[in-house]
Amino acid sequence: MISENKIIDGKSIAKSIREEIFHQANMLKTFNIIPGLAVIQVGHNPSSTIYVRNKVKAATEANIHSFIFQFEESTSTEQLKMKIEHLNNDPKVNGILVQLPLPNHIESMEVINTIAPEKDIDGLTIENVGKLVTRQKGLIPCTPQGCLILIKSIEPVIKGLQAVVVGRSNIVGRPMSNLLVNEDCTVTIVHSRTYNIEKICEKADILVIAAGKPKLVKKEWVKDGAIVIDVGINRITKFATTKLLGDVDFDNILPKVRAITPVPGGVGPMTIACLLKNTIEATMGQKGLMLGKNGDIVKKDNFKSL
Amino acid sequence: MISENKIIDGKSIAKSIREEIFHQANMLKTFNIIPGLAVIQVGHNPSSTIYVRNKVKAATEANIHSFIFQFEESTSTEQLKMKIEHLNNDPKVNGILVQLPLPNHIESMEVINTIAPEKDIDGLTIENVGKLVTRQKGLIPCTPQGCLILIKSIEPVIKGLQAVVVGRSNIVGRPMSNLLVNEDCTVTIVHSRTYNIEKICEKADILVIAAGKPKLVKKEWVKDGAIVIDVGINRITKFATTKLLGDVDFDNILPKVRAITPVPGGVGPMTIACLLKNTIEATMGQKGLMLGKNGDIVKKDNFKSL
Repeated sequence: MISENKIIDGKSIAKSIREEIFHQANMLKTFNIIPGLAVIQVGHNPSSTIYVRNKVKAATEANIHSFIFQFEESTSTEQLKMKIEHLNNDPKVNGILVQLPLPNHIESMEVINTIAPEKDIDGLTIENVGKLVTRQKGLIPCTPQGCLILIKSIEPVIKGLQAVVVGRSNIVGRPMSNLLVNEDCTVTIVHSRTYNIEKICEKADILVIAAGKPKLVKKEWVKDGAIVIDVGINRITKFATTKLLGDVDFDNILPKVRAITPVPGGVGPMTIACLLKNTIEATMGQKGLMLGKNGDIVKKDNFKSL
Repeated sequence: MISENKIIDGKSIAKSIREEIFHQANMLKTFNIIPGLAVIQVGHNPSSTIYVRNKVKAATEANIHSFIFQFEESTSTEQLKMKIEHLNNDPKVNGILVQLPLPNHIESMEVINTIAPEKDIDGLTIENVGKLVTRQKGLIPCTPQGCLILIKSIEPVIKGLQAVVVGRSNIVGRPMSNLLVNEDCTVTIVHSRTYNIEKICEKADILVIAAGKPKLVKKEWVKDGAIVIDVGINRITKFATTKLLGDVDFDNILPKVRAITPVPGGVGPMTIACLLKNTIEATMGQKGLMLGKNGDIVKKDNFKSL
């Protein structure tokens, strides 16, 4: 029973964020604003299709309009860029997301950087990355943003704690490590080229794993009392049944930790909740609005045009 | 005598880079191009005046034109931004640098972000920071760039080594840690909020210190055989004599290390050399030129306008 209290309920935390978003979207209606989310999918990767469907469903439930643009696998970098430029100029669209990964022949970075930074709800454009690293206000990538909320649900002040981030992708590892440095953690970023990775993880008060390798992290890697955030979503098919596995050996680690996220039901739901959060934030930014002290939506002072 | 071989001669490495820059500037002349460096100084901070003078002197020696713009301490953010916008559009100016720190009443970030990213030879605009973090080609901040060259002068392949960066400033610590992650090091970033900082430094194969605290790093903090890069330049005045001190207790650390930079004569000269290097790189980028295989300067294919 004690063990169960250690499992961070990402689903329920995400639910309460989504309820807040729903409430904010309703308040935006009083300003005659309906936030719009544009999702671009290229090809028919089954996982991508599931992700896109879930995002759109969540947006609809939160009173956010969504527009799906489906491109053939054979589409070109230029075609995608043209579509994005069009969406950048479309006032009904407040957030643009390109479902990754894109096919190999597409220049992914070029496509992403075409998104107007203020509509870049995935926080992946050069401008939003640069803002995060230099501690300026921008849109923060959804998955690491969600991980940080989960960590803080356990330990609100993490200043001075040792954090280890496994993985250095642009989507998770890099922004996660920068977010944790901004929170005054001492941060180590480890990756596929790291020697003695287990010895480094062993020191972590906060361990975030985004390696994409099922059950990579064993009991011996984890410090007693650590907070463990498992970003991995690995689909393992056996005897025609597909199971989702995280990057950590959950059952064996559970007794040691202070708190741990399950897969599924941990980080996954938070990514979607933060996507909606970013969409509302982007919408407010574009319309010269902000959250007031009591959680209501107010006009920004000095904003030039509404 | 053995000890002396361990001292990384930043002055001599910087000199050879500056000779190369001189040669490249001469080659640019054959294209009728003289690189131009604009330096903006606000107020009359004596250290800043020395830095600016040294940069301009080095530029002149390398056949790079320099233009100094001196503003009063009381100048405004808007005045600085207007000047920078003017320089962004001036074809004689290929690199723009704002000598930091700026007075407290100035919005430093706003001023820096006004610099056109392709002229941002200090690599401090949001765009160049974002490019560094996402491994895209951009201008890299001078001091960490210089540190990396010094590290590689000792150990050309640093993949998998443990690096610890002390300090998380936008100018040194943050870009340094990102550069080292890009080089496949396992990187820990520590700072004023870190507990047991000495225990973490002790694990470092590569230790870069940019803390601004004289003799902060003691012998016990340093691993046997480490490479130690001391970014600190602390001016200590005693009995009317001013001495430069680094962030490490050099004399006591020297016997333990594989290599160490002195202060002065270590990182300092590299910062200036890399500033000139960035100025040439920026100039070539703006003119559609690049370094060819034999170190000669050639036109880029597909470059639209010269």
